[in-house]
Amino acid sequence: MTPQINRQVRLKSRPSGVPQPEHFEIVAAPVPVLSERQVLVRNEYLSVEPAMRGWVSAVANYSNPVGIGEVMRSFSAGTVIASSHPGFAEGDQVMGMLGWQDYAVSDGSNIVRKVRESDLPLSLSLGVLGLNGITAYFGLLDLGKPRPGDTVVVSTAAAAVGSAVGQIAKLMGCRTVGITGGAEKVKLCIDEFRYDAAIDYKAGNIAGRLAADSPRGVDVYYDNTAAAISDAVMIQLALGARAVICGTASISSWDPPPSGPRVELHLLVKRARMSGFIIFDYQHRYEEAIARLAAWVRDGSLRYREDIVDGIEDCPGAIAELYRGENLGKRVIRLRH
Amino acid sequence: MTPQINRQVRLKSRPSGVPQPEHFEIVAAPVPVLSERQVLVRNEYLSVEPAMRGWVSAVANYSNPVGIGEVMRSFSAGTVIASSHPGFAEGDQVMGMLGWQDYAVSDGSNIVRKVRESDLPLSLSLGVLGLNGITAYFGLLDLGKPRPGDTVVVSTAAAAVGSAVGQIAKLMGCRTVGITGGAEKVKLCIDEFRYDAAIDYKAGNIAGRLAADSPRGVDVYYDNTAAAISDAVMIQLALGARAVICGTASISSWDPPPSGPRVELHLLVKRARMSGFIIFDYQHRYEEAIARLAAWVRDGSLRYREDIVDGIEDCPGAIAELYRGENLGKRVIRLRH
Repeated sequence: MTPQINRQVRLKSRPSGVPQPEHFEIVAAPVPVLSERQVLVRNEYLSVEPAMRGWVSAVANYSNPVGIGEVMRSFSAGTVIASSHPGFAEGDQVMGMLGWQDYAVSDGSNIVRKVRESDLPLSLSLGVLGLNGITAYFGLLDLGKPRPGDTVVVSTAAAAVGSAVGQIAKLMGCRTVGITGGAEKVKLCIDEFRYDAAIDYKAGNIAGRLAADSPRGVDVYYDNTAAAISDAVMIQLALGARAVICGTASISSWDPPPSGPRVELHLLVKRARMSGFIIFDYQHRYEEAIARLAAWVRDGSLRYREDIVDGIEDCPGAIAELYRGENLGKRVIRLRH
Repeated sequence: MTPQINRQVRLKSRPSGVPQPEHFEIVAAPVPVLSERQVLVRNEYLSVEPAMRGWVSAVANYSNPVGIGEVMRSFSAGTVIASSHPGFAEGDQVMGMLGWQDYAVSDGSNIVRKVRESDLPLSLSLGVLGLNGITAYFGLLDLGKPRPGDTVVVSTAAAAVGSAVGQIAKLMGCRTVGITGGAEKVKLCIDEFRYDAAIDYKAGNIAGRLAADSPRGVDVYYDNTAAAISDAVMIQLALGARAVICGTASISSWDPPPSGPRVELHLLVKRARMSGFIIFDYQHRYEEAIARLAAWVRDGSLRYREDIVDGIEDCPGAIAELYRGENLGKRVIRLRH
């Protein structure tokens, strides 16, 4: 049966900071008819990412902002239900930039990969076996360059990327310290993600507790916050430390750019470096990361948490919810068809 | 004739920012008698470095601060006039951490090297063939990793380190832009150090002029300032840019640490990195750098400016003068014996 209605979450107006429900609208559109070399994907899971704030922002960024009236850009995972494209067959499971909508038509260019881990839940292709896991993997290993015995500090330690960073660092023989918000997430860090220590930033005195916990300093700092948590970590870098800049979740708006303590003296005295990266630059190496991540998931050495909610109606408020830190685990929206 | 009096410039009190004349005193001490395995060096040139601010600072740093009452730590160049050390003979020219004084006794451990470029002035061993040149060489080549065609921006572009950075970058096939203070130094950058462009930060609008001059962005930024000049450069990094943190001359005090615009978003969006370094980590490779620098000096492709003043009386005010940017060329103090 050919589907008739395609619900889409479209960007209604441009937010200046974190997008709120009122910046989106849900519209019922017709399901498009396939042209040549196209596939029709029925989305089953829609992803929610901190990076989406950047994707709708007019502030200079690494990609063009989503246009007003356009379907919200997102990773989605689903099943090919019709194909005139030689590379895809009906029944293929795929993950791609398919947007916040029920159905997506694609010429293949925005499909990131076919999901072949059929023994594992499809939703993982949006989380630990998707961009979150891949981001953790390359950011930590390529830029952080952890060595056995290193102290690796992770901000947003219980979240989708951070929890994978902490566990991969542990697999590399490092001592891991997670920074997260609230007692429940601290417990999750220790019990589930097996950090050696976890610090609740909401309890204050991050710097003091980090100094007590890691007196020899921080060798690798994997950051997703770019604010007070980072300021507390940067003053405790070890000689030769590597700070990996993955996200800036604690900055409510980059326009105008916020100020913070200058980092130059720490970098100089500690012969340290700060490096930023965008995971899309690693596209040619995704499968290498996913193969390793999937093996760790299968043998239980890489754990994950999902926070799956049902219904496209949840999309408009989902990014703001993420920034409020309310969810435990990777936020995924499951579609009912 | 054995010298009788050793004039020493001692640290009298601890400055909180840039050391001023009143933080030092000149004392006449006896010339020490040699024990076994020691050398007596008659200093001929004393160096003045921006880094000296850090050496007398109580703020956490890469070396223990000079103690109150101790001879001011400095590089000096001179001649061995007596030796009971098998590694040194009378007449050897040496450069080392020999302090702001007429005569230094050493067991060899604080002698950085024997100066063997006898065809070149001994004073160069404190400048372009000393730590300044070496700092420029390794900071630019090892951390900045310039590629032919790159745009390399240098702050303190007319100074001892910066002028060498600009010229080495040019030798590597880069386009060089110097940032310096005042029309006289701008002229020096263009005429003497052959920068492709030079910007006078005192004329304001650094960011606008840099954008006009380098619309494709900055590939390498070699910094010695850590303040407004850097802020203007960091917003114009090219993809994959490398910022090298060599010094923080524009910060009058690091206690308390000053604030500035956060750099995380620039590093992330531009997949860029900021790295700090301390040249002392490269000690095992000094001769490699000096051999190459000396060859460039001899064939005229690496030019230098010296600002030589006579008399140890000039020492107490020399660091503050450096920070006021009053000198043109490497400041060296020549001793009359």
